[in-house]
Amino acid sequence: MGEPKSKGIKKRPSSRLGGILDGYDPAKLVIATACSHSSLQIFHGARAEGIKTLGIAVGNEPKFYSAFPRARPDEFIVVDSWNEIPKLAGELRKRNAVIVPHGSFVEYLGATEFLKLNVPSFGNRKVLEWEADREKQRDWLRSAGVWVPKRFKPGEAIDRPVLVKFHGAKGGRGYFIAKNQDEFMEMEDRVQGKAVQIQEYILGTRYYLHFFHSPIKKDGYELSRGSLELLGMDRRDEANIDEMYKLGAQELLKKSGVLPTFVVTGNVPVVIRESLLPKVFDIGERVVERSYELFGGMTGPFCLETLVSDDLHITVFELSARIVAGTNVFISGSPYADFVEPGLSTGRRIAQEIKMARRMGRLPEILT
Amino acid sequence: MGEPKSKGIKKRPSSRLGGILDGYDPAKLVIATACSHSSLQIFHGARAEGIKTLGIAVGNEPKFYSAFPRARPDEFIVVDSWNEIPKLAGELRKRNAVIVPHGSFVEYLGATEFLKLNVPSFGNRKVLEWEADREKQRDWLRSAGVWVPKRFKPGEAIDRPVLVKFHGAKGGRGYFIAKNQDEFMEMEDRVQGKAVQIQEYILGTRYYLHFFHSPIKKDGYELSRGSLELLGMDRRDEANIDEMYKLGAQELLKKSGVLPTFVVTGNVPVVIRESLLPKVFDIGERVVERSYELFGGMTGPFCLETLVSDDLHITVFELSARIVAGTNVFISGSPYADFVEPGLSTGRRIAQEIKMARRMGRLPEILT
Amino acid sequence: MGEPKSKGIKKRPSSRLGGILDGYDPAKLVIATACSHSSLQIFHGARAEGIKTLGIAVGNEPKFYSAFPRARPDEFIVVDSWNEIPKLAGELRKRNAVIVPHGSFVEYLGATEFLKLNVPSFGNRKVLEWEADREKQRDWLRSAGVWVPKRFKPGEAIDRPVLVKFHGAKGGRGYFIAKNQDEFMEMEDRVQGKAVQIQEYILGTRYYLHFFHSPIKKDGYELSRGSLELLGMDRRDEANIDEMYKLGAQELLKKSGVLPTFVVTGNVPVVIRESLLPKVFDIGERVVERSYELFGGMTGPFCLETLVSDDLHITVFELSARIVAGTNVFISGSPYADFVEPGLSTGRRIAQEIKMARRMGRLPEILT
Repeated sequence: MGEPKSKGIKKRPSSRLGGILDGYDPAKLVIATACSHSSLQIFHGARAEGIKTLGIAVGNEPKFYSAFPRARPDEFIVVDSWNEIPKLAGELRKRNAVIVPHGSFVEYLGATEFLKLNVPSFGNRKVLEWEADREKQRDWLRSAGVWVPKRFKPGEAIDRPVLVKFHGAKGGRGYFIAKNQDEFMEMEDRVQGKAVQIQEYILGTRYYLHFFHSPIKKDGYELSRGSLELLGMDRRDEANIDEMYKLGAQELLKKSGVLPTFVVTGNVPVVIRESLLPKVFDIGERVVERSYELFGGMTGPFCLETLVSDDLHITVFELSARIVAGTNVFISGSPYADFVEPGLSTGRRIAQEIKMARRMGRLPEILT
Repeated sequence: MGEPKSKGIKKRPSSRLGGILDGYDPAKLVIATACSHSSLQIFHGARAEGIKTLGIAVGNEPKFYSAFPRARPDEFIVVDSWNEIPKLAGELRKRNAVIVPHGSFVEYLGATEFLKLNVPSFGNRKVLEWEADREKQRDWLRSAGVWVPKRFKPGEAIDRPVLVKFHGAKGGRGYFIAKNQDEFMEMEDRVQGKAVQIQEYILGTRYYLHFFHSPIKKDGYELSRGSLELLGMDRRDEANIDEMYKLGAQELLKKSGVLPTFVVTGNVPVVIRESLLPKVFDIGERVVERSYELFGGMTGPFCLETLVSDDLHITVFELSARIVAGTNVFISGSPYADFVEPGLSTGRRIAQEIKMARRMGRLPEILT
Repeated sequence: MGEPKSKGIKKRPSSRLGGILDGYDPAKLVIATACSHSSLQIFHGARAEGIKTLGIAVGNEPKFYSAFPRARPDEFIVVDSWNEIPKLAGELRKRNAVIVPHGSFVEYLGATEFLKLNVPSFGNRKVLEWEADREKQRDWLRSAGVWVPKRFKPGEAIDRPVLVKFHGAKGGRGYFIAKNQDEFMEMEDRVQGKAVQIQEYILGTRYYLHFFHSPIKKDGYELSRGSLELLGMDRRDEANIDEMYKLGAQELLKKSGVLPTFVVTGNVPVVIRESLLPKVFDIGERVVERSYELFGGMTGPFCLETLVSDDLHITVFELSARIVAGTNVFISGSPYADFVEPGLSTGRRIAQEIKMARRMGRLPEILT
């Protein structure tokens, strides 16, 4: 494994971290995260790699971990509310903790607090600025050269199916689908609220692609910095859109007051047509390379949420710049990860990356 | 592993068993079941744990087991019809057989005959009385404090989608869905039969939760007696409700005389949103604890068939008090079971329980 | 393992191969295939069995293999277009290559060229004649005694849902579903094209059954020649039929100009109701046995694409006489293959078959 190509790299990451790692004993790193989302996998992976783990929980030590002895964290810190996490910074640093942030960790803590949290965190936190703002995320993807769904301007003619987001939409609720202008206008009348976003609804099948970008591992699928891996793909279960067809047609359900919601409740494993893999990697590569140009690089696990249409085009409708819950399907390997190493989960891959960086003396490049 | 907390335990199970185990050589136990449902997994698990197996088949020795050398039972007993099983009791006892009853075993034999069968059976047979009667099952679940779908009384106004069961409904046929009062009445007119049950149809995504309750294993997720494990979850495939949307809307299909059916034909693996796991275990725990109060406890594998709605409430619409076929997806482990032990199936867990009870001299607590 | 029952066998296969294998060094066989479809699995399986691999690619060496070190072929041959493969024959023979043909290999090269290709190929190429012609495939299946969907003659009354294929239909496009005569006529008017095929559309759930027939392995599920294995089953993802219900009912979508397509984009794992396995094997057995009568036998992996209706009848709507992409779900084993050998993929099974035939001196029986 060689040095990174760009001379800038060595400087950038150390400035990212400031002095947070000062005083850390690299031999005693502890992986810490909030007890939810993909924590079982993160703890399980760390344990498999011989790294100690710390679970942060609200209210009390969650009992359900006792049912999963191989995924139970070595220790818990219990707080009264997620708001208290910032106060834990000193305690976490004292314990040599590295945060592995998952979607719920960032959501519970809030983006602003997470950015300020004075504890080393796996991955580049700067990605948040580009990920959380839908317009910036869209710019990132488009400027990387990947397809995204068309956005409609207010008043623009609806010439194809659209997904409409209303004011106050959150967590899969407050959206609806219109297949043409008429349905759109009818819904606007009905809701009497403001459509805050009108986006093309692309027909196709969904693949949530689980990538891992290491800035320090050179073998494998090579990028200008480090390498890219594909560790699996899933499809999200969404209530109640997934099963409401059993009740009737969308058009008639709407009349009965039954509107679709898109709340993620779980995941199923999938594989994609192998002939699409060159395109899959090309998209992943573009998104990572562009992230270096925009904000110094997104590192570690990320997910591209894609639609494959019947002409086999791949459209990215969302990006998650950290471990997503869809990887929980692949605790013990996936049809893709097993080509890298048998039984490799994303959680375990994170632990491996931390160990590798420690061994190479390059922790500042994978932490912020 | 300590003694059970309740002093009553030691007495209760031995009275359950009566003298059936008298004359058994514990060192030579044989696991027996009917050749169907989840038998491959049961035989495979027993073999992996070094226990001999016996397949009970109708007509002739099923040839397909020869395609699965690691799951083939060591011996077969062939009968002319399932009705003959009671006559096998002596033969089964002579062979030191312990029945692992699965859904088909109980169905083929009939609940009454199964209750009388004078052969040790894994789990507490008394559960049948509370499981087979839909009203009692419902009482059990409700009194345990878990959510169940609302039942409508005859003539009660239909104010939400309902699943209606008609006289003669069986095995997934004879049901239909109405999304409102009008559709319900229209269907009543059409069928001119008697709706024997009207139940709320909850919109959401389905998770069939595979639990295992051991009354003798203390480590893990602790209950007032023994422990609780979660070994996987699946979603059932149902013909023809799953795919009929390809043909058109339910409302229009009905007019064309195409009515939905709900016949289970297979299973797909799923995982649930991790933040729901505390609730999942809470529900499992409540159902087990209540079973001790009602009838001395349901032991071994059981399945809670649940719906997660878009407000993330979990409703239990059915309970199966033994191994279900959905566990067949996880012959070589599941994303949950692998946190207990790599590659652990429900079939293997059953064999482990029998071995553990034998070792501890506590077989009467897991057999009836 | 004994000699095949039929005296004819020894002669038949050697005449199939002609002298292609002359000059081959059996100790140095190389498994070669086109870089697409199921090639990762084929290379991975060969490598696991210690056989060298060769990937044939168009344009340039595909980069994505570098992300999958355990599945990367040992060498690549890069051509400008698939049309050049016939010119590679000499080169491939020089390298002791055995082609493992997958669906894309045959499609890219064309059936005629594939039949002429003077390189040993895994399986019996003669099957193509019976597989590629839909009428002959149908005759094969029907004469084997398995259920196939009803075909409608031009002008025949449409008395049930049908799948209609229009002139120019290809790769999942150019088909539509009509649930009755009216919809069929309406669509004919609309398309003003010629329906080239009208086939019963059977309601049910889909199971794509992955079999493996070895003419040389005698243990296991015994056929008149060799044995039959079941290595897994999947369900295909199809764009856009799978997800279009989210937009509305088929009937109303059609009016909006949104017509279903059936383009395969990926796969999900499934298991079938265990009580259907005797029927599953019976069907597989019939299809293989009949293939010997018709054209000297289909060997190696094959897939029966089936529908299970709510009366639990199994209908075969298509047959693929080689490895299909649905097996990609099971790179590291399946709930069925694991009963044969832990972690067995179809790709690995192919490599095992080649090794076994080599060891037994029976390569001519599995190659053409």
